[in-house]
Amino acid sequence: MNLSFTTGQIAEIIKPTATRGSTTLPVRNIASLAEARPGDLSFLGNPKYKPEVAATDASVVIVPPDYDGEPKPNQLFLLVENPSAAIAQLCARLEQLLWPKPAPGIHPSAIIETGARVAASATIGPLCVIESGAVIGERTHVEAQCFVGRDARVGDDCWIKTGSRITSGCVLHNRVRLQPNVVIGSDGFGYEFVSGKHEKIPQVGNVVIHDDVEIGAGSTIDRARFSRTEIGAGSKIDNLVQIAHNVVIGKHCLVCAQTGISGSVTLEDHVVLAGQTGLAGHIRIGKGAIVTAQAGVNADVEPGATIKGSPAISYMLEQRFNVLRPRLPELFRRVGALEKQLEKSASA
Amino acid sequence: MNLSFTTGQIAEIIKPTATRGSTTLPVRNIASLAEARPGDLSFLGNPKYKPEVAATDASVVIVPPDYDGEPKPNQLFLLVENPSAAIAQLCARLEQLLWPKPAPGIHPSAIIETGARVAASATIGPLCVIESGAVIGERTHVEAQCFVGRDARVGDDCWIKTGSRITSGCVLHNRVRLQPNVVIGSDGFGYEFVSGKHEKIPQVGNVVIHDDVEIGAGSTIDRARFSRTEIGAGSKIDNLVQIAHNVVIGKHCLVCAQTGISGSVTLEDHVVLAGQTGLAGHIRIGKGAIVTAQAGVNADVEPGATIKGSPAISYMLEQRFNVLRPRLPELFRRVGALEKQLEKSASA
Amino acid sequence: MNLSFTTGQIAEIIKPTATRGSTTLPVRNIASLAEARPGDLSFLGNPKYKPEVAATDASVVIVPPDYDGEPKPNQLFLLVENPSAAIAQLCARLEQLLWPKPAPGIHPSAIIETGARVAASATIGPLCVIESGAVIGERTHVEAQCFVGRDARVGDDCWIKTGSRITSGCVLHNRVRLQPNVVIGSDGFGYEFVSGKHEKIPQVGNVVIHDDVEIGAGSTIDRARFSRTEIGAGSKIDNLVQIAHNVVIGKHCLVCAQTGISGSVTLEDHVVLAGQTGLAGHIRIGKGAIVTAQAGVNADVEPGATIKGSPAISYMLEQRFNVLRPRLPELFRRVGALEKQLEKSASA
Repeated sequence: MNLSFTTGQIAEIIKPTATRGSTTLPVRNIASLAEARPGDLSFLGNPKYKPEVAATDASVVIVPPDYDGEPKPNQLFLLVENPSAAIAQLCARLEQLLWPKPAPGIHPSAIIETGARVAASATIGPLCVIESGAVIGERTHVEAQCFVGRDARVGDDCWIKTGSRITSGCVLHNRVRLQPNVVIGSDGFGYEFVSGKHEKIPQVGNVVIHDDVEIGAGSTIDRARFSRTEIGAGSKIDNLVQIAHNVVIGKHCLVCAQTGISGSVTLEDHVVLAGQTGLAGHIRIGKGAIVTAQAGVNADVEPGATIKGSPAISYMLEQRFNVLRPRLPELFRRVGALEKQLEKSASA
Repeated sequence: MNLSFTTGQIAEIIKPTATRGSTTLPVRNIASLAEARPGDLSFLGNPKYKPEVAATDASVVIVPPDYDGEPKPNQLFLLVENPSAAIAQLCARLEQLLWPKPAPGIHPSAIIETGARVAASATIGPLCVIESGAVIGERTHVEAQCFVGRDARVGDDCWIKTGSRITSGCVLHNRVRLQPNVVIGSDGFGYEFVSGKHEKIPQVGNVVIHDDVEIGAGSTIDRARFSRTEIGAGSKIDNLVQIAHNVVIGKHCLVCAQTGISGSVTLEDHVVLAGQTGLAGHIRIGKGAIVTAQAGVNADVEPGATIKGSPAISYMLEQRFNVLRPRLPELFRRVGALEKQLEKSASA
Repeated sequence: MNLSFTTGQIAEIIKPTATRGSTTLPVRNIASLAEARPGDLSFLGNPKYKPEVAATDASVVIVPPDYDGEPKPNQLFLLVENPSAAIAQLCARLEQLLWPKPAPGIHPSAIIETGARVAASATIGPLCVIESGAVIGERTHVEAQCFVGRDARVGDDCWIKTGSRITSGCVLHNRVRLQPNVVIGSDGFGYEFVSGKHEKIPQVGNVVIHDDVEIGAGSTIDRARFSRTEIGAGSKIDNLVQIAHNVVIGKHCLVCAQTGISGSVTLEDHVVLAGQTGLAGHIRIGKGAIVTAQAGVNADVEPGATIKGSPAISYMLEQRFNVLRPRLPELFRRVGALEKQLEKSASA
């Protein structure tokens, strides 16, 4: 990144209510208070880092209105109601600079099969393959070397990053983002065991991804055996997540990295699955439930519950178990001592 | 999917022994009894769902001969000996419609290096790279944007899906299916620690995949240090599985999603590894053994055993432990109470 | 692999101090003592396999100088100080044969955008995309179908294997190896929960990978929220590893397969993370610490510590717990027996 903002440009974006001090340096980077060097911008997003403001070398620091310290020489404080929100605004502007909306059009090296329909406002990057019957919506950006299979449909304002594969018949609604190397619509893992061999059960459903979903790099979402695997609007899936056939994920769920969801699981809305969790097939996770990291879930979960461990139990129970886990040897010794004592008193 | 079957076409495929009722609607989708709407076909595959037949809105329902209910108006029952098998037949037909066998030939945008041999009956998709010395067998379909490296060999009737990478010298026998973005023949993770640095041990073996193996999306199979990493005939590997160098997998094994198998592990035939299991290096899993989800295996496993937990122990032992795990705090309290009681009686 | 070495060629590479016996067969493969067949070369790398030397069918066997057995007819022993090192030398030669350094140049099918700079000594494979502002260093080999995004920089002597994605603004220093389908610079998983929805926090930092790092197939490394995600010199990352935004990995670390490292974690130098470990966000793993397989780490780890379990505790404590884990039912029975005994003596 070779960003460079004058303090005037920054003030224009975040509109501070007041300023203190001044700096002659343009801003070239954003960094945490502790890591910032001259030429960097930093911010006080969390009151617990307040002592770090006085020590920071950042040239520009965004602070809340009630911050009472004074800037060093050649340092500018910008006072805003919500420094974190101001940083988000700055980052959004940076994002536009880093990934400017590309010009519409189809790169000449892309292979667009007869019968595919690409909106005039869409951008298709180099060496993409868009198969027959596929549809690409308005303003959607398909980066280099992606694959959109036969009869697949990608909605408006989607961003499909390099190397992603949307296979035959799958559907993405609007504003869906795929990070690089995502696979949508691989076959579900379904076999019947017949005379010592695993016979493949054809997987003829598809995957449907609703509005505003984001899917992380290298994640894989299997097509349904029949009907569909579905990701609800606003849900966010992290990297290297496996979602099996016929899973239905509700709205505004968070699924963290390396989680595996087995076939026909249902997640109601606002569920959170932390990293490396595993869900057994055919279970239902209630609305707003939280599954903590590395948990293994093999039964339905009540709405609003927080569960932990493998197999997962209530968070409180598992926490108590974990406190006592290192003391199990001690407990064995204590029971042994009790037994000896009783034996002695019995023989006395 | 825009499938549409008349009831006559369906009867021709599944050959019912009898019918009850009739419908005027063509079939446009397959769905479960509970989810089906008019225009859908459904089936009673498991007796426990019997009550759902009377309630379903499916226009066509496949039921076993002993099902005694009557269809609603504009609803057709097709009676067959094995409804699940009938659905599999229908799905197989659907699969042919969704993924018709492509015409043989090499897409003009594919790069076929001099010295590569592609069978005349094979299909090479757009933007593939087939390097020098590579061989592609009869009727094999290599989808768009795949890579087949130098001297790699792919047998007959294989299906290599988009974005898969078969690197130099690796061998696939016949009827092997790779889902999208599979990597065959990445380097094994082997280093020698020499004067504070990890020096790479060259990985000069290959990967050999026998007949009728299927490998899931995003899975990675490392080449051997020397000799070969091997997947036995008929074994099925799910998505995002990691198979390290010099692993040997027997015939007809099932390896579920996100499992990791460390170097030089041997799986005998018919082993099942459930999801997110991890196997330490240089161990042997006996014929027909089952490793349950999230288990961590660090020692040889007897043929036919079922193991569970991390580190894995016998299924029964781990189940008993898991029942008692939430009661460990109670046990501490009980032991504390006993100690007090004994103390009191001792001092009495 | 169709390798074929005469015994003379092998002697030239490994320079034995003495030989015993002779063979007429050229060497076509390297195999373990137990698996070797005529025409294979094998070696005694570990004294515990000594009895296997007398039984092996290998045509050539590399043994240490103090090995006192005699070869069979048509079998050659090559005596060297360190047979494992000799094998490494042979493998390195094999590696050069298997993956000869390609001729410099840009394949005519690659798309090099205006403003990208590719060193004259670099090799760019077919169907690569190198975007504007990207830099490819001296002698670097970018294999087929890779992506190097806008303003990304790849140093000298790197080897970027097929299907890898280095996204906008990311930096690879020298001698970095990416196995196939690696993703560098996917967005970090960062959202703010605002009125029931997850609003994306733009991720505008990058990824910096220092000298001599190797990254395994299918692994994903997220760009920083701002500033950078960093992998220190000499560190080796295995397959299907997830590294979140703003992680900093020190020098000469080993991160085994399917490990997940959450945001803003710091690994000091020489840390080892075994397979399928998971690290919670914002923690620090001290220099030389070892995290054993499948451990879940949710707190800082002292330098040099070895930890185990989920949540991870000291290796010794967890080992003791694991020994007693299967005996928990027995402990419940013993405590029940004590209670009954006391009850009886109390009522007596």
